Amino acid sequence: MNPGSKCRTCRQPAIIDLPRHNANFCAEHFLELCRRQVIKAIEHWKLLERDDKILVAVSGGKDSLAVWDLLIELGYQADGLYVGLGIGDYSDVSGDYARRFAADRGLKLIEISLRGEYGYDIPTAAKATRRVPCSACGLSKRHLFDKAALDGGYTALVTGHNLDDEAAVLLGNTMRWEIDYLARQLPKLEARDGFPKKVKPLVRLTERETAAWCVVRGIDYLVDECPIAAGNKHLGYKATLNAMEAESSGSKAAFYLNFVERMAPLLAGHLKDDREALRECEQCGSPTSGDVCAFCRLVATASAHERVPVELIMRGRR
Amino acid sequence: MNPGSKCRTCRQPAIIDLPRHNANFCAEHFLELCRRQVIKAIEHWKLLERDDKILVAVSGGKDSLAVWDLLIELGYQADGLYVGLGIGDYSDVSGDYARRFAADRGLKLIEISLRGEYGYDIPTAAKATRRVPCSACGLSKRHLFDKAALDGGYTALVTGHNLDDEAAVLLGNTMRWEIDYLARQLPKLEARDGFPKKVKPLVRLTERETAAWCVVRGIDYLVDECPIAAGNKHLGYKATLNAMEAESSGSKAAFYLNFVERMAPLLAGHLKDDREALRECEQCGSPTSGDVCAFCRLVATASAHERVPVELIMRGRR
Repeated sequence: MNPGSKCRTCRQPAIIDLPRHNANFCAEHFLELCRRQVIKAIEHWKLLERDDKILVAVSGGKDSLAVWDLLIELGYQADGLYVGLGIGDYSDVSGDYARRFAADRGLKLIEISLRGEYGYDIPTAAKATRRVPCSACGLSKRHLFDKAALDGGYTALVTGHNLDDEAAVLLGNTMRWEIDYLARQLPKLEARDGFPKKVKPLVRLTERETAAWCVVRGIDYLVDECPIAAGNKHLGYKATLNAMEAESSGSKAAFYLNFVERMAPLLAGHLKDDREALRECEQCGSPTSGDVCAFCRLVATASAHERVPVELIMRGRR
Repeated sequence: MNPGSKCRTCRQPAIIDLPRHNANFCAEHFLELCRRQVIKAIEHWKLLERDDKILVAVSGGKDSLAVWDLLIELGYQADGLYVGLGIGDYSDVSGDYARRFAADRGLKLIEISLRGEYGYDIPTAAKATRRVPCSACGLSKRHLFDKAALDGGYTALVTGHNLDDEAAVLLGNTMRWEIDYLARQLPKLEARDGFPKKVKPLVRLTERETAAWCVVRGIDYLVDECPIAAGNKHLGYKATLNAMEAESSGSKAAFYLNFVERMAPLLAGHLKDDREALRECEQCGSPTSGDVCAFCRLVATASAHERVPVELIMRGRR
């Protein structure tokens, strides 16, 4: 940003430049822009109703704290859910940020510990399944988010996925033309048997913008990225999109938003979930296409495995 | 390639490594691999019939000379078509390569000169239309290729587009989710009123492979890229895909081939051409959705403009 840059709205000194919007903003009008983008997402895609009982999946990072803060500010009723993944110090510290945010604002935070309640953690699950840690982590979180939302009588599960996240996942699925995954990549998935409604109100904000939201709002968040995600493909796709964005401002938003507007409707009939008959998991009752759901199979494999320290999973990774 | 690498087929010293195929090849078996990839494309997508009368669009570069060479070698009947675009020395030299290739093999090369027959060249057209030169160039070539194929009674128009070309165009159209363009991006477009069948037999070969084909076969080709295309978005998309390919061998081929197999069929109903009623251009009789086709409008604009030297178009470009 050039020194002396002025806010587009009030001409006071700007604190942030947003090349995608071809404008600079002061703190107040930057927050206003973020609110408008979230409201636009909620209204355009009908993400939330005023009387939704919302559960926000909270990691202690900028995105999940920003979305919780924004929803409360916009007058929604929203509790938080923190899942302790057992990724060494990273998880301990992330839990502290989530707890402090909730306590400072008198908000309700539900906590689940993988190790305490299911007898495993993510490093151990990665070793036991011999797959990348992000795989066991995603599976665990999806299952526990769904279960907590349904058990608690919540009508909407909110995640803090931002534009960078969604565009990177979209690029990965597009590079392989994974039609099933592409068809699911929407800012809202409707509730259906055994699954809550899932919505992503931050998809019109970049991660730079959610970080700036937290800074301006005085929200303390865990800045570190997950130590065992480093070098994963998702981060590679983010870097690719950032390079393209640097060449052509707005290309990242156009990639994601045009997908949702133009392509997703053409894929609506190709949702694998809609085609598959689901029944109840024999062990936990969750919807599954087999006898036992993937989460219960993961619990069985990982909880029987000797505990693996996080450093072992990080070793040898880039 | 490691020194001492052996050909996967015969264990003789290799001349090229192909990480995508996880193998190295000697000259003979590299050519065999290229032939097999072209035959596979022709058979799988039913690109060509044995009795097709083929016109190959020839620029004098590696791809167009390679595809002409391959088709002749595989026993097809194929003449060449060279369009003189008037891009300074670049066009003069490219014509020489095309003529030499044809003359050495006793093949028929049809020649068309934009300046000689239509009173303009690409640098002048770019200036007159105030658009990027690649736009006027693509429009001119498409029109003249179609016209020459139909006038000459050819049943198939072949272009030398390789995997890198097609994947880069695909990435560009995907970044904006241009559904009309995506729906057209196939290795074969069937003939229809006023348009010949158009096929791309090299889409399973990378540009490194078509270059190596020419080197091994002793084909002299123009190595220089078009001087006024430098810095265009297409080359940026190629660079992006090359960076992703370097991270993960085979990702470029998967991107293009999975698109054609999985996504293109879902877009088959979305071809704009199939929806639009076309009539004959009032001036040249070509199919058009308006009164006068885009080519005739370009000729009118560009031929009335003072001649522009190529250096003027190159100036100020990256």
